[in-house]
Amino acid sequence: MSLDRAYAEKLDATDPLAGFRERFLLEDPALIYLNGNSLGALPRATLRRMEAVFREEWGTALARSWDHWVDLPAQAGDVVGGLVGAAPGQVIVTDNTTVNLYKLASAALGARPGRHVIVTDHDNFPSDRYVMAGLAAQRGAELRMLSTDIDEGVRPDLVRDAVDEDTALVSLSHVAYRSGALADMAGITGIAQAAGALMLWDLCHSAGSVPVDLDGCDVDLAVGCTYKYLNAGPGAPAFAYVSARLREVLQQPIWGWFSQRDMFAMGPRYDPAPGMAKFMTGTPSIPGTAAVEEGARLLLEAGIEPMRAKSVRLTTYLIELADAWLVPLGCAIATPREASRRGGHVSFRHAEAERIVARLAEAGVITDYRTPDRFRFGLSPLTTRFTDVWDAAGTARDLIAPDAGHG
Amino acid sequence: MSLDRAYAEKLDATDPLAGFRERFLLEDPALIYLNGNSLGALPRATLRRMEAVFREEWGTALARSWDHWVDLPAQAGDVVGGLVGAAPGQVIVTDNTTVNLYKLASAALGARPGRHVIVTDHDNFPSDRYVMAGLAAQRGAELRMLSTDIDEGVRPDLVRDAVDEDTALVSLSHVAYRSGALADMAGITGIAQAAGALMLWDLCHSAGSVPVDLDGCDVDLAVGCTYKYLNAGPGAPAFAYVSARLREVLQQPIWGWFSQRDMFAMGPRYDPAPGMAKFMTGTPSIPGTAAVEEGARLLLEAGIEPMRAKSVRLTTYLIELADAWLVPLGCAIATPREASRRGGHVSFRHAEAERIVARLAEAGVITDYRTPDRFRFGLSPLTTRFTDVWDAAGTARDLIAPDAGHG
Repeated sequence: MSLDRAYAEKLDATDPLAGFRERFLLEDPALIYLNGNSLGALPRATLRRMEAVFREEWGTALARSWDHWVDLPAQAGDVVGGLVGAAPGQVIVTDNTTVNLYKLASAALGARPGRHVIVTDHDNFPSDRYVMAGLAAQRGAELRMLSTDIDEGVRPDLVRDAVDEDTALVSLSHVAYRSGALADMAGITGIAQAAGALMLWDLCHSAGSVPVDLDGCDVDLAVGCTYKYLNAGPGAPAFAYVSARLREVLQQPIWGWFSQRDMFAMGPRYDPAPGMAKFMTGTPSIPGTAAVEEGARLLLEAGIEPMRAKSVRLTTYLIELADAWLVPLGCAIATPREASRRGGHVSFRHAEAERIVARLAEAGVITDYRTPDRFRFGLSPLTTRFTDVWDAAGTARDLIAPDAGHG
Repeated sequence: MSLDRAYAEKLDATDPLAGFRERFLLEDPALIYLNGNSLGALPRATLRRMEAVFREEWGTALARSWDHWVDLPAQAGDVVGGLVGAAPGQVIVTDNTTVNLYKLASAALGARPGRHVIVTDHDNFPSDRYVMAGLAAQRGAELRMLSTDIDEGVRPDLVRDAVDEDTALVSLSHVAYRSGALADMAGITGIAQAAGALMLWDLCHSAGSVPVDLDGCDVDLAVGCTYKYLNAGPGAPAFAYVSARLREVLQQPIWGWFSQRDMFAMGPRYDPAPGMAKFMTGTPSIPGTAAVEEGARLLLEAGIEPMRAKSVRLTTYLIELADAWLVPLGCAIATPREASRRGGHVSFRHAEAERIVARLAEAGVITDYRTPDRFRFGLSPLTTRFTDVWDAAGTARDLIAPDAGHG
């Protein structure tokens, strides 16, 4: 490790994933984009796929394309499944993360009659907390909030203390959106299940960024978005995972024609489809689902292990630079220092966080702000270079330094 | 009226909307597409808009585009509102029709405590019936099914007989998906409201096809899809209308971050946003919402009254040709003959309907089949020519004639 830019250049020169940056449309050479954990970059393959979906499949073949479009949510789901350790037939691409959280949590409550507690944590992403609060209000359930340390993330012992014979569902994020802390999926899932509860993981900040082994951890339920590390574009449909153990047992609450067995029979009674289609609702976005398939395929091509290896090197390098340059200026590192305990972004605390993010953007470095006093550097292994990290950390240093006394 | 093709050519030559066909990508000159009531054609303006949304807004500006994307669901909603008689601030583009039905029907049940009956009709579209059945099962409500005559559609007297002091919600389709029958929106809304119920209209087959006056009919709630007459593409987001009278009172059940007041504060408690944003859930599809805006704008430019005038002329012409050519071959006209009582498609009954649709498709005429014995000709005033109607009806006649004895 050296603080010279030449060191970053050397890391880029030997980066086995360096060639993947060309696979994305990143046309502004002056831009350093460290916000792929909010919206991932646009893959060139997705642009080509959209051209085919719009002009040929929609524009020319028109409604006849439904013959193959109907298979797309399950087909894209299986590709996503390959990224999160799910055997085929357990993932469907549909709706958005919020709607999927609602459907799966509701299904879980239905599968645990007599239990009335949902456990989540006070630092879970807003939609996760709000959906559970809404369900609790509608079903007369109780929402039990873990008091996690935000920087540390959810520790298994906190979950162990919170679950009991009343717990129907434990719902947590695998990687915390503010701190980037990575939870112990296997350990926490086991604790929830030992208490008789179902376990629902939100993978928004982990799918496509860290290895996820849903089947191996015997997870019950999971959801995730696709517009961050999966690079499927703004508001692309999310995914839902239901373990094959539970798939035929659970019933989701939003009964739509895409979740109906033999949907074109349009029969008089609702009869849920077999397989993951039963967790769909109405007509899915076809361009969005195709973009999910393209984004996920590109990640599978790169390989989750090489991506994770580079991600760890990127975040480690950033933390080292920050220790030298930013910590002395009053930035606290708000992400676990142990690489195995963090995901793909590094979070800093500083009283002027919101202003730092704005001034970084003016300087061409896109990061993001999270309440009340954090800024995040998202490092996407397929598009972020080590020189980007060096340049961004240096820019932050230069911006914060003259401000140090004016906070 | 004459049965010669020259007559159809004359109608096309004097059609004031004829020029709009050029605004769509319809590149196969041999194709006669009469399925715009299933999936509308691709507007060229939408292709240009997608190029901007993908390359510039996503690919180049990246997450910074959220500064204006956050306004898009309400902005597109107001454009759609212009097509369905809704003053600004009452329509939002979000989710799909099924999810919107669920949210609004659930909100309606919450607003009518002590009432436990939902009225719908046995020929309502599957998602509409299934969503209401699901809600009834979850809330211990009762689903009361009107026994409508399918060809005739929902008559006001049937609704009057069904509603009473237990009725919380009446949920019906404005234009019936099978027969094309057009319901009396003002009359039925008044009947539902006189009984103290809320009225929810599904506009999937009427928005962009027939004049809709939600505010003028004092409607409470409405939903609709955008991939039929609004030409927004496969699975484009749907819309939801909530009357300004009810907007601040109703609460929808899926509490997500896009429905939260001051969403980026990410506060500890759910606090629904003012205005229509409270009826959103999670992150909306940005390309899809932009496509809705483009499609709806194109219809507003053409004008709903000229479109309806042409639509009536198209369906009338088709019925006249069918009386001459198809009725003698055993096709029954299964759409109201009175123009004011039908929407934009004409439905026929024939024992071999499914096979007729398949053989028409082989001959380059795209229509669709609906159980058990119907085929539909969807006539979209911006893309369908009178010669298309003549050619399609003639093709159907020639296909069915030799079959007549082989049913």
